[in-house]
Amino acid sequence: MILHLVTFSWRPDVTNDDVAGVIEGLSSLPDQIPELLSYRFGPDLGLREGNADFAVAAVLDSSESLTAYLDHPEHVRIVQAFLAPLIASRQAVQLEIPPDSGL
Amino acid sequence: MILHLVTFSWRPDVTNDDVAGVIEGLSSLPDQIPELLSYRFGPDLGLREGNADFAVAAVLDSSESLTAYLDHPEHVRIVQAFLAPLIASRQAVQLEIPPDSGL
Repeated sequence: MILHLVTFSWRPDVTNDDVAGVIEGLSSLPDQIPELLSYRFGPDLGLREGNADFAVAAVLDSSESLTAYLDHPEHVRIVQAFLAPLIASRQAVQLEIPPDSGL
Repeated sequence: MILHLVTFSWRPDVTNDDVAGVIEGLSSLPDQIPELLSYRFGPDLGLREGNADFAVAAVLDSSESLTAYLDHPEHVRIVQAFLAPLIASRQAVQLEIPPDSGL
């Protein structure tokens, strides 16, 4: 199983409405992409100084499922329309997690 | 519940042995820090171009539990001894996840 993680820092001019658009868009994906065994995302809670602004965490069963998610037309559309314009910096990692586990 | 995510990019001179030291150190933490309801970490799988190098994902039940983990002497020791010297860049996010959920 693969845990796919992405952290984002936003550009300084990003608004709450911009972020709400990202959240609404991402919220529609699990129903359309069955490869997403788990899908968590959201804004940083503001608990720690120096944090990034937003993160996505997905569990998938294989690298093929990861590709199916990343290349899914609706994912691509939401990234291009809502997410990409907000990004100042981004770090992605995929790591191995034990079979049948969540996070 | 809080999902704590950190992505790391390593300095160019980091070796596999350096990363093995990080993994060994982090592996010892769940037995010592009961606040860690789930603790996943590891190197990037190398599936995608441009990824960062390593990530940590932890589930905790509250901001107090997050602080207990971050400030735990053994966590601090492992970060200082094994992790911090390898870091070129780092992005951390804490986000809200539903009660009693994993990732």
